[in-house]
This record gives sequence, C-alpha cells and structure tokens, in this order.
Amino acid sequence: MERLTATYHLSSKPEDIEARAVALATEQSLEMPLSALREDWGVGDLLGRVEAIEPLGADLFRVRITLAIATTAFEAGQLLNMLFGNCALQEDVELIDVELPPALLSAFQGPRFGIAGLRELAGAQGRPLTCTALKPQGLSPDQLAELAHTFALAGLDFVKDDHGLGNQRFAPFAQRVRAVNQAVEKANRTSGYRTCYVPNLQGGPKEVLKQARIAREEGIRAVMVEPMILGLPFFHELVEELGVPVLAHPAFAGQRIAPALLFGKLFRLFGADAVIYPNYGGRFSYSRQTCLDLANNARKAWGHLRPALPVPAGGMSLERVGEMKEAYGPDTMLLIGGALLSAGERLLERSREFVERVASPG
Amino acid sequence: MERLTATYHLSSKPEDIEARAVALATEQSLEMPLSALREDWGVGDLLGRVEAIEPLGADLFRVRITLAIATTAFEAGQLLNMLFGNCALQEDVELIDVELPPALLSAFQGPRFGIAGLRELAGAQGRPLTCTALKPQGLSPDQLAELAHTFALAGLDFVKDDHGLGNQRFAPFAQRVRAVNQAVEKANRTSGYRTCYVPNLQGGPKEVLKQARIAREEGIRAVMVEPMILGLPFFHELVEELGVPVLAHPAFAGQRIAPALLFGKLFRLFGADAVIYPNYGGRFSYSRQTCLDLANNARKAWGHLRPALPVPAGGMSLERVGEMKEAYGPDTMLLIGGALLSAGERLLERSREFVERVASPG
Repeated sequence: MERLTATYHLSSKPEDIEARAVALATEQSLEMPLSALREDWGVGDLLGRVEAIEPLGADLFRVRITLAIATTAFEAGQLLNMLFGNCALQEDVELIDVELPPALLSAFQGPRFGIAGLRELAGAQGRPLTCTALKPQGLSPDQLAELAHTFALAGLDFVKDDHGLGNQRFAPFAQRVRAVNQAVEKANRTSGYRTCYVPNLQGGPKEVLKQARIAREEGIRAVMVEPMILGLPFFHELVEELGVPVLAHPAFAGQRIAPALLFGKLFRLFGADAVIYPNYGGRFSYSRQTCLDLANNARKAWGHLRPALPVPAGGMSLERVGEMKEAYGPDTMLLIGGALLSAGERLLERSREFVERVASPG
Repeated sequence: MERLTATYHLSSKPEDIEARAVALATEQSLEMPLSALREDWGVGDLLGRVEAIEPLGADLFRVRITLAIATTAFEAGQLLNMLFGNCALQEDVELIDVELPPALLSAFQGPRFGIAGLRELAGAQGRPLTCTALKPQGLSPDQLAELAHTFALAGLDFVKDDHGLGNQRFAPFAQRVRAVNQAVEKANRTSGYRTCYVPNLQGGPKEVLKQARIAREEGIRAVMVEPMILGLPFFHELVEELGVPVLAHPAFAGQRIAPALLFGKLFRLFGADAVIYPNYGGRFSYSRQTCLDLANNARKAWGHLRPALPVPAGGMSLERVGEMKEAYGPDTMLLIGGALLSAGERLLERSREFVERVASPG
C-alpha cells in the first residue's frame, strides 16, 4: 500500500519525543487507542508510521510520518484532514513538508496555466512580471477604473483588485469588473500594452461561481481568490471551472503550516497559477530563507505539475526592485501596491518607473 | 455608518503599541499608507479605528478596533477577510473577540435547529445528549454498521462518523451511509431508542452537495462537517441547503483565533447547530476556562441566533462524565469515542454504562 510522507516539527522533551511522535502518527490516522485495535479489522497498514525523528534544538524535533494514501480519498479536503486535521489544534505541532507518491500526485492537476500561461497573457519573456493592486476599499467603480486606467497606461502587466474588494455596495462586483476592465482595455488600445485586470472573487461557492460567470462574460483573462477563506477543496474545484489563470492570495492563513509548504506546494497542487505571499523585509515577518524556499517550491520540477509563479508582496517599494530581481530571478511577479498609490498626482510616472526598473537589465 | 468591534491581542513593546495598533487597524481596512489617502476619495469612514488599548502583561496588549460594516459585504468570506485576512499572517496578532451590530448580525441566520432541534431529534430533555464516533478508518461499511448497531442498541443519542471518514474506497460514502443508517434504524426498532446516525460530509462543494443529497435520500437526520476544511463561506451556504442539523468538527483550525470566538461564536454565526471541540484534560491543550468560555458563547443569548450545543470531546472517558456534567450542565453533548471502543467484546455494556451515567441525576 503506497504511502505519503508528512514532516512535522514537534516540541517535546527529549524523553517524551518517541511516544509523542507515535501519538501524532495515530492522531493523524486511525485516531484511537492502539490497545483498542482489533486484529480482525485488518486496518494495520492504515496506521501512521513514524519513520524518523531528528533533534533540531532544545526540545524541538523533526518527525517524519508516513500515511497510507488510501486514507486521503485522493481528494483535497480529506488530504488536508490527514495532514493537519486534528493536530492543527495541538500547539506543539507544525506541518513542515509533504511528499506525495505519483499515485496520489496524479489525482491533482495543479496549475492549468502556470508561469508559461501567465507570460503568454502578458506577452513578456525573460523578465519578472509586474502587478499592482486597486485600493482602497470604498472607492466607486469609476474611481477604481480611473486608477486602473493610469496603471494600464504605464504598462503594468497585471492590475488586480485588492483582496479587500469583495462584493460591497460601494463597488458591487459586476459594476466594478465592467468599469475597471473597460478602462484597462481602453488604455491598452491607446498604449499598445496588454495589461490584464484581475478581479477578486469572494464568497460562498454560489456567489463565487456567479462572479466567475460575470468575469467570463466581461472577457476577464485572470482572477484572484483567497483559497484559505474559500476553503481549499472549493478552490481546487473552482480552478477546474475557471478557464483562466488564478492568482492565490494568502489571506486567512496562519495555521502552523510552513509557508513554503502551504503557499509553495499545496496552493500549487490545488491549482494556483501564481501565489502571492508576504515578502521578507515588508510589513510581515517571513524570513528571506522562507521566501526563497517558497519560491523554489512553487517553481521546481514536481511530477506533472506546471510551475507556479511566486509573487512576493506586502509593503514592497520601487527601491527594492533591483534586489528582488536578484533574489528571485526572472520567473517571478513583483507586486507593488501602496507605494505606487503614494505617488498621488505622479501615479502614472511612478508606475512607469516601476515598469522600467523591472524591464531594465540587471 | 455602523461599525463592528474586533478585539485582538497584540504583542508589542509598550513604546510601539500605539503605532502598531494603528497599523493593524489600517491593514484590516484600507490597507495602504495613510499618507497616500486622498481627501476626495471620501473613504475616511472605512478606515479601521483603534478604540482602546489595554496592557495585559509584559509586551502584550488587548486592542479594540472598529471597522465599518459596509466593508464586510454582509457575507461570510469578506467578513473573515476584514477580521483576520492579512493579519492572519502576522504572528504578533491574535483575534480574540468580535461584536457585531444588529444590522450585520441580521445578515446571518445562525443555527437552523440549535439545541432545541437536537433535543427534539433525540427525544431527550433535561440531560446532556450522548454521542460516539465510528472509527477507525479502514473499516468496511459492514464493519462500521456492526459497530453502529451496537452503539444504537445501547441507546446513544448520536453515532457520528469519525472526521477521518471521507469518501475512501474502503468505505465509500454512499455504501457507508446506507449500511450504517440501516443498522441504526434496525437497532432502533428493537430497542425503542431514537439513535441518530450522523455521517461526515467531506470534499469540494460539488462532492459535498452530492453527499448531502445521498444522505437526504437515505433519511439521514443530521450531518457533520469540518467547516475549516470546507471553508467557512461554503459552510455557511451549505447549512442553508441541508435541511437537517449540522455538527461542526474543529479539524484544520489552529489559526491564531481564540477558540471561544472561532468555535463558540463564528461557527454558530455561520450555522453550526453543535460545535465539537477539544475538551480540557484530554489529548489537546485547551484550558478549562477556554472551554467554558466557548460553551458560554455557543449557548448565550445573541440577537436572533439560536443557541448551539457545545460538544466537548477529544480523549474523554466514562470516568469523567460526572465532572463534565457538573462543568457544562445539561445543555451539552458528551462525545466519547476511543474509550468506548477500548471495551472490545464489552462494547455494548460500556456504551450502556455511558448512557446510564449521563442519564443518572447529579
């Protein structure tokens, strides 16, 4: 019976770690006292197995556990349940990494477009893609459209809704998408650029699928969602129906799952074409190494899965473009939001400067 | 413009707390540099406001922030986004409590059945309800049905699937639900009890809605889901379609949201009739006070919302029934899983003892 491998960090006294690791392997599989298991049930292979325990420091261990892939039902929700269901509630556990054998990996299609698809949309090769965010909340569709028009004139590849734009009354989804997209297309006709507006889908499945239909009717070529708010099984199902690339925003994450795994691997597994995450040195606290590991996971060879585009963001500035290009290389998307808006009357110039800095060699 | 209040715990040096609180209020609302806000945008009322900062101990503060309810779009996904979207990624922030004004609360129906509905199903008043879990993973539908038959003969009110039972090949949903439900109904005809089988729905919306239809066709009278895996906006939408009470299982939670808020308030707000959570003194680490606060939130008067039933669980034993009755009072459901299965050949007797201990006065 084939097995997946899940790697956890476990906080424990050294004298307790073996028992704690077995308890975790049990919790994440048969979830009952081992003394109560009956031989004639024939479920022994389904019990999680502790494969390795490695000390990492004072009272911290890396523990590798294997689980029978049959328990995942080859489906996103139950896979998450097996990896981090009950133990999500145990504060001494952090999920660090996951290795899936081909028989399980083949159940997931991953990104439908990936890096190549996003590059094709943008018509850009050999350089990072550029993106900004429409905000703040509270602007009307026309106000957002005006901002988007300026960004598009400057030649940004992607202009996305801020994740805080839902279906609020001040800018209802249908009106917003129409107004912004028309403004961007108008700018494209003037400028010759191919700026792509990326609306944010938000809500329960009925509402999100309705928004996806509206987006399709408006000719939208990429969308954004927050997979942790929507739920990863719904996200996985949605990607199949969208027919356009999807940018995944990290809002509402924060469980004890390593960001490199959650955003770099799991979001990609479930179909994200691009993964937005808080870059080091911004308003959030991820380390440089965490961010580089995340980007590496998103892009590296992984079975049949297309590579996903890393999108470091969260308080980035024009001054950091050179450094980010150096850190991430060309297969990345640089997302600068507030720092462009801060230009006020000089928004077009500042946005052009962003585009030029990204396009310039070195 | 009406506002909701969100209370956070913020880790900060005292000299930085005021700026940190303002940054949090900004992150969770307009999400841009305040210096970049234009007067003519007219969005000032949508900016989060710091209402109070209270020291809680060394470098820890309770911070109350108000947000304009218009930003929530009166919808589950966007409400979560406002409360704990980006700041979920900031490790110095914990979401502690939420107060919703009537204009926002009225957008959510909460439990459709609540405590009264679950009592009516069980035909039981004035005592805690009883529940156990079918496990382990790997049993066939017939093996699960045999266990369920025994539990039902003993007179348990609810026999639920373990949360680890998805749509796996060893016990596909349709076959499992049919076999187990028929076994329970057969036992009910023998015993005169009204045991209710509660299958677990798992997967993306299409799959879950299909499972809900199957359950309905089999005459299932209550279901279980894991809202954090399904996604809370989908959970909220699903409850509207189910037509039967729903038990909410806590798997895959573990963000920095106080359990009393997440399980006691938010799960209830989005429609959970009963909320399962790890009781103190079991395999999990919640404190007694956390558990009592959670139960209180689930049951207390809250606008038009029906009370939800607290279901303390996670390594509970027969020996603790008296203590739990005293701690939680009658409006609770006691869930004992593995400790019953440990009885082996004496499963029926042990299950009867559970039922009797709960029913006995005092």
